[in-house]
Amino acid sequence: MTMTDRSNLEKAAEFIRTHDDFLLLTHERPDGDAIGSIFGLLNFFRDNGKCAEAVLPDELPEKYLSFLPSNYRTDISSVEVAMHQCCIILDTPNQFRIGIGNAAKAEQIGIPVILLDHHPDNAKYGTINVVKPEVSSTAELLFMLSKELPQWRVSPEVATLWLLGMIMDTGGFRFDNTSPATLRNAADLIELKADHHRIMLELLFSKPLALLQFEAELFNSHLHREFGGRFAWIYIPEALIRKYRIEMRDTEGLIEILRSIRNADIVALVQGNGDGFKVSLRSKDSRYSVGWVAREINGGGHEMAAGGKIKNANFDAAMKTLSDLVGKVLHS
Amino acid sequence: MTMTDRSNLEKAAEFIRTHDDFLLLTHERPDGDAIGSIFGLLNFFRDNGKCAEAVLPDELPEKYLSFLPSNYRTDISSVEVAMHQCCIILDTPNQFRIGIGNAAKAEQIGIPVILLDHHPDNAKYGTINVVKPEVSSTAELLFMLSKELPQWRVSPEVATLWLLGMIMDTGGFRFDNTSPATLRNAADLIELKADHHRIMLELLFSKPLALLQFEAELFNSHLHREFGGRFAWIYIPEALIRKYRIEMRDTEGLIEILRSIRNADIVALVQGNGDGFKVSLRSKDSRYSVGWVAREINGGGHEMAAGGKIKNANFDAAMKTLSDLVGKVLHS
Repeated sequence: MTMTDRSNLEKAAEFIRTHDDFLLLTHERPDGDAIGSIFGLLNFFRDNGKCAEAVLPDELPEKYLSFLPSNYRTDISSVEVAMHQCCIILDTPNQFRIGIGNAAKAEQIGIPVILLDHHPDNAKYGTINVVKPEVSSTAELLFMLSKELPQWRVSPEVATLWLLGMIMDTGGFRFDNTSPATLRNAADLIELKADHHRIMLELLFSKPLALLQFEAELFNSHLHREFGGRFAWIYIPEALIRKYRIEMRDTEGLIEILRSIRNADIVALVQGNGDGFKVSLRSKDSRYSVGWVAREINGGGHEMAAGGKIKNANFDAAMKTLSDLVGKVLHS
Repeated sequence: MTMTDRSNLEKAAEFIRTHDDFLLLTHERPDGDAIGSIFGLLNFFRDNGKCAEAVLPDELPEKYLSFLPSNYRTDISSVEVAMHQCCIILDTPNQFRIGIGNAAKAEQIGIPVILLDHHPDNAKYGTINVVKPEVSSTAELLFMLSKELPQWRVSPEVATLWLLGMIMDTGGFRFDNTSPATLRNAADLIELKADHHRIMLELLFSKPLALLQFEAELFNSHLHREFGGRFAWIYIPEALIRKYRIEMRDTEGLIEILRSIRNADIVALVQGNGDGFKVSLRSKDSRYSVGWVAREINGGGHEMAAGGKIKNANFDAAMKTLSDLVGKVLHS
């Protein structure tokens, strides 16, 4: 039976209303949306009289820890999984990315699965799947779900966690996935006492000194420009990562800083990786497809954001390959 | 007669509906809110059959130029001012800051004045004044005014200019003046075809390369930390400003980057200024008043954001003065 997403959302709400015991899961290496979504839902369930348990990979990014309740587990056995009435999987396009530790594998979940996600490439697995690519974030989708349960209370803590997810997935309402509905849902959450001020201060206005200095040294000494500045790229030396004790997940914002360089049409972040070089690419103009560049170097992605890997090459040869490909795109 | 702001907004709308010829002014050194407000209102009036003229100081920040219609003037004589039916003054707390060039001075405006502003310290001059400190920006206030004129059309260009003003005055919906109403008004403007994508891309995701490199060199080579990192400060050498050909108004974002350093409680930006040093200060914790520090060095401001000047001192002596004062605040 085919149903619209709208009725799937109602169906999910109805299922939740009529069941009592939920296992909540999300993807491995959880980001702000995954974390805000799962902890918000965990507390939303418990606040409204349901039993719920959240299982996450053990290491969560440090910057989120102060926002999180400690009531979650980092591992679970497949036997325990099967003892729950229902499993809710959040923000996870395919089952292989579910981060439920070593003991319980995704394929062993032998209970009904409700899937809630906003990724367009979601494989739509699960007993009930609610996949809405037009929604900014899974956290926003959960807030929409809560509106289907009008008797249930959304506490300030839950509102804060869902707003956190929305803010992290929209780059603080800056990315194109920020729709009028997103802004109105954020407004509703602030009225429910979500701590907008704290999220902005601690997550968007806060950076470790070492990361700031690492970025400063990169832009000072490792920024290259070609084709009259239309192509700007940075190579991140391993030594610099060690010098500032940077973790790779801390460098996620770098490509956005690169992308902000005025008049650069294509930007790239290059890093040594085994026998070659990993390349992240961004374009600022749909006429210049970095998706094509990425596909030429064993990678893929969208036209405006893509990545690949140049294998079996020394640095100079790798950068010549990249530069030639980008040149073709810029001059086509 | 005392009236509430609400009825003043209605009164302003009624006045506008029943008059035909408007002179629009705003403050000197106009920022994003002033510029978005005045050009949005200019086009809103003209789109709806009114005569209107905008007068701005001649130099507008370059980053806004591509958003602006060219239909404005940079100077006007007092005789011409008096020939208008009405003057609307936007975003300007007191008359002395009206930027109407040399010929016509504020006190010479001999026609009815409608004042629309959101600054809490507004002197509430004018024939009708609408001063609403709880509104994020003057641009948002103008959009509220347009809702009092429901027959009038808000074009995509007008919606874009007002959204631009709102975004620049809220730091892209990040500052505390972002209320639920602000987010809902932004949602309404996007539905009126405001170009959210372009504003974000060109104004918040765009930085001249020289400015990026200037900032990188500052944080790399001129960042100082005291009291175990709780006080972080940067001295901007004159030579660096010349090296990267930086204009001082381009450095407005620097103090926010400084403020983002995790674990720094107080930050300062220091710059040579004649016979001494100009100091901008920010605190991240209301227990540590930089307002007090500023008042000790011939300045003032709020408790969390202030500035002053250390006079008649060489660099080392000035920094010792500053450091001692900050130390007192941190250890009080």
